[in-house]
Amino acid sequence: MRIDCRDRGLQYGDGVFETMRVHQGRVRLLEYHLERLGLGCRRLDIAGPSLTALRRELERIASRRSEGVLKLIVTRGVGRRGYRPTGREKCTRILTLHALPKTVLSDASTPARVRLCAMPLGLNPRLAGLKTLNRLESVVARSEWSDARIWEGLMRDVDENIVCGTMSNLFLRSGPNLMTPVLDRCGVAGVMRRWVLQRAGELRLNVIERRIRWRDLSEAEEVFMSNAVVGLRSVAVIEHGRERLRHTLFETANQLRRRLDSL
Amino acid sequence: MRIDCRDRGLQYGDGVFETMRVHQGRVRLLEYHLERLGLGCRRLDIAGPSLTALRRELERIASRRSEGVLKLIVTRGVGRRGYRPTGREKCTRILTLHALPKTVLSDASTPARVRLCAMPLGLNPRLAGLKTLNRLESVVARSEWSDARIWEGLMRDVDENIVCGTMSNLFLRSGPNLMTPVLDRCGVAGVMRRWVLQRAGELRLNVIERRIRWRDLSEAEEVFMSNAVVGLRSVAVIEHGRERLRHTLFETANQLRRRLDSL
Repeated sequence: MRIDCRDRGLQYGDGVFETMRVHQGRVRLLEYHLERLGLGCRRLDIAGPSLTALRRELERIASRRSEGVLKLIVTRGVGRRGYRPTGREKCTRILTLHALPKTVLSDASTPARVRLCAMPLGLNPRLAGLKTLNRLESVVARSEWSDARIWEGLMRDVDENIVCGTMSNLFLRSGPNLMTPVLDRCGVAGVMRRWVLQRAGELRLNVIERRIRWRDLSEAEEVFMSNAVVGLRSVAVIEHGRERLRHTLFETANQLRRRLDSL
Repeated sequence: MRIDCRDRGLQYGDGVFETMRVHQGRVRLLEYHLERLGLGCRRLDIAGPSLTALRRELERIASRRSEGVLKLIVTRGVGRRGYRPTGREKCTRILTLHALPKTVLSDASTPARVRLCAMPLGLNPRLAGLKTLNRLESVVARSEWSDARIWEGLMRDVDENIVCGTMSNLFLRSGPNLMTPVLDRCGVAGVMRRWVLQRAGELRLNVIERRIRWRDLSEAEEVFMSNAVVGLRSVAVIEHGRERLRHTLFETANQLRRRLDSL
């Protein structure tokens, strides 16, 4: 599949995307994905596709597979040279269906090793939370390690707050408190993060969105991460240079994973 | 011209670009463009094209036109799903030749009106100075106004320092001092900015790279901006809400423009 080189998605990263899990022939958390896509288009003033038509299209494509990954890119479309959109662009929609990586199922319930990345996340409140096509920070951060035993990298903002993983969101539990980094200045607000926050009440957890520091990670009883494709993944080890934080409690992530699997 | 949808340039903005002025059948500041492209590829660990072959190609294409704009995009190439590059990608090279916008010649010596944008520039020292395909901040900033009489918008970082225009760099002159924002945390280090800094000595100007505030703009004797296609453009008015800063000295920009035109 090919697209026009003049597409602003390529020229400027002028677009948004969603990476969705297909499970039993259905898109998991489809409404959340559609809502975030719609929000991203509105915030960037992109005339996006009809969400009703898109929902039908995604459902139809997902029905071909029992398990898979569905990626949707929406760009502002083909434009003239220059940053300024004319407002008359017609958005481009790119849908691709991929096999579910084998490790997603085999590693789901194994607590992960993660590391702290050197690459910082730039602060920009106007783009914070959105899943835009400007993903170079994640690319550079993910390039920092090649050890396949390390599942994910944690990223900090330029003020050393820990914000999210390269492809996931972060949760810390201490007693009845479930903490997650506030995403008002940078980071992507994942659909699985939203689902966790909405389930917290059922697990009698108090949700606290705030700035998270390295010290908070060491003091937490339990650490886990969320991702739309992977679901919930417990964290057993966090590496930072020679330092190692170890966690041995995984009950909250396990409870959430059971609920997710029954969706 | 079309490219593969799996190209990481589209998927993640994983690449860099150069926008070059063709003047009398030659690429202006070609060596600076090649050097910045090479630096960007190295910093992102992209196996870029041979600069020798690229130089020949650009020269050949430029020779077809007396005036024009030549845009070169280099992406990491087609990749698998996921942020991590394998290191085996083959870079994609996209070259397009455009007509020179008429206003570039007609407005060159008219001092411009510019405005202060609300959209901030995110801080990321690791990407600062590079001209990457992650340009959403410039797109959103450039979308803030549609008044054709306003030529450019100035962008601030999240700490209110004035860093650059959406498509240009900024200079302030006071007496023998030529100041320009330091680009260690964000902003694009333009090739024309580099050329100006290297010519400053000939004009007996002391170059000072530092943080620039709104107050510095009001205290400067002369303000001008640089861009590879436009060259040098004096600034007569800077708007910020209802506030207006007015400048009436344009001699440094005029001197530099004469030198540039004789290249």
